[in-house]
Amino acid sequence: MPTTRLEAFSDGVLAIIITIMVLELKVPHGEDLSVLAPLLPVFVNYVLSFVYIGIYWSNHHHMMHAVTRISGGVLWANLHLLFWLSLLPFVTGWMGENHFAQLPTALYGGVLLMAAIAYQILVATIIRAEGPDSLLAKAVGRDFKGNLSTAAYVVAIALCFLVNQWSAQAIYALVALVWLVPDRRIEKMWPR
Amino acid sequence: MPTTRLEAFSDGVLAIIITIMVLELKVPHGEDLSVLAPLLPVFVNYVLSFVYIGIYWSNHHHMMHAVTRISGGVLWANLHLLFWLSLLPFVTGWMGENHFAQLPTALYGGVLLMAAIAYQILVATIIRAEGPDSLLAKAVGRDFKGNLSTAAYVVAIALCFLVNQWSAQAIYALVALVWLVPDRRIEKMWPR
Amino acid sequence: MPTTRLEAFSDGVLAIIITIMVLELKVPHGEDLSVLAPLLPVFVNYVLSFVYIGIYWSNHHHMMHAVTRISGGVLWANLHLLFWLSLLPFVTGWMGENHFAQLPTALYGGVLLMAAIAYQILVATIIRAEGPDSLLAKAVGRDFKGNLSTAAYVVAIALCFLVNQWSAQAIYALVALVWLVPDRRIEKMWPR
Amino acid sequence: MPTTRLEAFSDGVLAIIITIMVLELKVPHGEDLSVLAPLLPVFVNYVLSFVYIGIYWSNHHHMMHAVTRISGGVLWANLHLLFWLSLLPFVTGWMGENHFAQLPTALYGGVLLMAAIAYQILVATIIRAEGPDSLLAKAVGRDFKGNLSTAAYVVAIALCFLVNQWSAQAIYALVALVWLVPDRRIEKMWPR
Repeated sequence: MPTTRLEAFSDGVLAIIITIMVLELKVPHGEDLSVLAPLLPVFVNYVLSFVYIGIYWSNHHHMMHAVTRISGGVLWANLHLLFWLSLLPFVTGWMGENHFAQLPTALYGGVLLMAAIAYQILVATIIRAEGPDSLLAKAVGRDFKGNLSTAAYVVAIALCFLVNQWSAQAIYALVALVWLVPDRRIEKMWPR
Repeated sequence: MPTTRLEAFSDGVLAIIITIMVLELKVPHGEDLSVLAPLLPVFVNYVLSFVYIGIYWSNHHHMMHAVTRISGGVLWANLHLLFWLSLLPFVTGWMGENHFAQLPTALYGGVLLMAAIAYQILVATIIRAEGPDSLLAKAVGRDFKGNLSTAAYVVAIALCFLVNQWSAQAIYALVALVWLVPDRRIEKMWPR
Repeated sequence: MPTTRLEAFSDGVLAIIITIMVLELKVPHGEDLSVLAPLLPVFVNYVLSFVYIGIYWSNHHHMMHAVTRISGGVLWANLHLLFWLSLLPFVTGWMGENHFAQLPTALYGGVLLMAAIAYQILVATIIRAEGPDSLLAKAVGRDFKGNLSTAAYVVAIALCFLVNQWSAQAIYALVALVWLVPDRRIEKMWPR
Repeated sequence: MPTTRLEAFSDGVLAIIITIMVLELKVPHGEDLSVLAPLLPVFVNYVLSFVYIGIYWSNHHHMMHAVTRISGGVLWANLHLLFWLSLLPFVTGWMGENHFAQLPTALYGGVLLMAAIAYQILVATIIRAEGPDSLLAKAVGRDFKGNLSTAAYVVAIALCFLVNQWSAQAIYALVALVWLVPDRRIEKMWPR
């Protein structure tokens, strides 16, 4: 099966996730600056989650480009990834409404962790279908960046309870920054 | 007419259905674990409905692959399927909010039953257009799995009133598990 | 410019319109049959609007098939149609919540009327771009069905105030039935 | 990388933005004309924002047509544009609910300004990838209309505080009118 419909469906789900998160920015009553102040953490939060969904979309886009055929297993590994990402609006809203409290921050990290694991499962499933000599398998290689961020989320969740939630927030932002650089490994190896 | 736009529209509707269901997971007030507890049944419910939409999308994807031309009748059989699936967020929300009470559980089964019947009508409409010797007609064959799940929903709804709702829930989960295995009949017969 | 992106954007907007209408079916509090009763008119309403969006999508699909090139004017004529259709969830919700009261029923007809006019403008804009000898121009011809339904909405709105809203509802349902038959004129003339 | 998936994702996000804005038109309680009156500014507002999203979609459509390859930088410049546009429903809702008060009107202009700047960054990023001799670079030229509207938003926001919000509203509507004429520069230079 070609990858077009899997891409179209993923694009649709990610487009909706990225857009419904803005619905958490509830239109305030009142027309002066003071009513906007309580929305600031929700807004900062929205930016972070928007960037995360953007990263997933961008990497998904890069990766699918290197994919030639998909199996039923790939469909479900992809749906599994979308499932965890679909929970991002919920945890984003909960974290924003509680001004980055401890437990919501940890749960946010938990959803990021599950999405990261789901992405690695998706990559592994695709490589199994494509074969170890495929372009994608070579491009991904040992997937240092993927493993690093999975580990970073685990550390962040632990720090959330051991130290405070701000250390976790810093790690979430840092991982996002690392990924903002698109995956040159694949782009570089891409045949013209 | 080619199938591209029917697929794109179905992808769009299914992507929205799967995503708005998460809106039933309302962001709770309060920041500790106790506020998450009442959301647990809603979450379990969301997982079940997510899997069901995933199954329909995956099977729709497989089937449309074997389709070469569509008629006006196929368009409407497809819209009919989307109609019943569009009611899934409503019954999911009602069932989740009432912690799997009897009537909501039965209505959930009713929507699953109507969607299953709509899917069988869609398959029949496509086969009528493609002809009895078509790839799809052969792949579907007697459609044992489709008939079985239609029957299972009827039994589940009956058990809901005769025994209790948990037996119905068990059947819904069981049918989902049976379908999670993608339709190998079509995949196997697929010409390279 | 090819028609692909105009079709994709229209599909997206129509998919969202058709799906957010179901959000008006608010999950009721309580778990017995009595809480569903007040939702019945909202549900009947949802069915009617779902069918209308389905008709627009199906006819849009058929028409765009006959189109070979689009201009900036066509883009905006299409957006104009989507604008009026985007108001359908609002008037559907208002009509449903007030159990088909007089004014909401008339406003519902007003939106249907504007959408019908917008569709005729879209057809005219496309034909102007395609030329009077184009396949589409010949297939549409004098557009009896289009003119008839535009007139029917005007009559329905008048009857709403002169007689009662039920006569208007009957006309809305009747027009939907007439259109449920896809536009054979185009399908018939379609070259193999 | 081809532009298809970037276009599909943008179409999805823009389709959702344009549609969720209508959700701010909350279904009123009551069935007579008086309950519609307070919705009038929200409606006028919706029309303006609908036209703005339509303009962005139409121009995006025209521009992407002239693009042959995209880089990771273009993906993110595009996401950056979508980010600011995704805030339009929020500021539209806030402006509408406060009947075009001063601060909401200024913030609305601020989001329009950021979106305009983001669009210019996107154009610049694409031209850098396509090269100064590319079709797009020539078509855009000195981008008089783009610079003019960026300046107009700055003036509008200033007037909002110095004079009153109605002067700002007039400028927003005027800029929209200027852009409603699709970008003939690109259309004209388009090779057959």
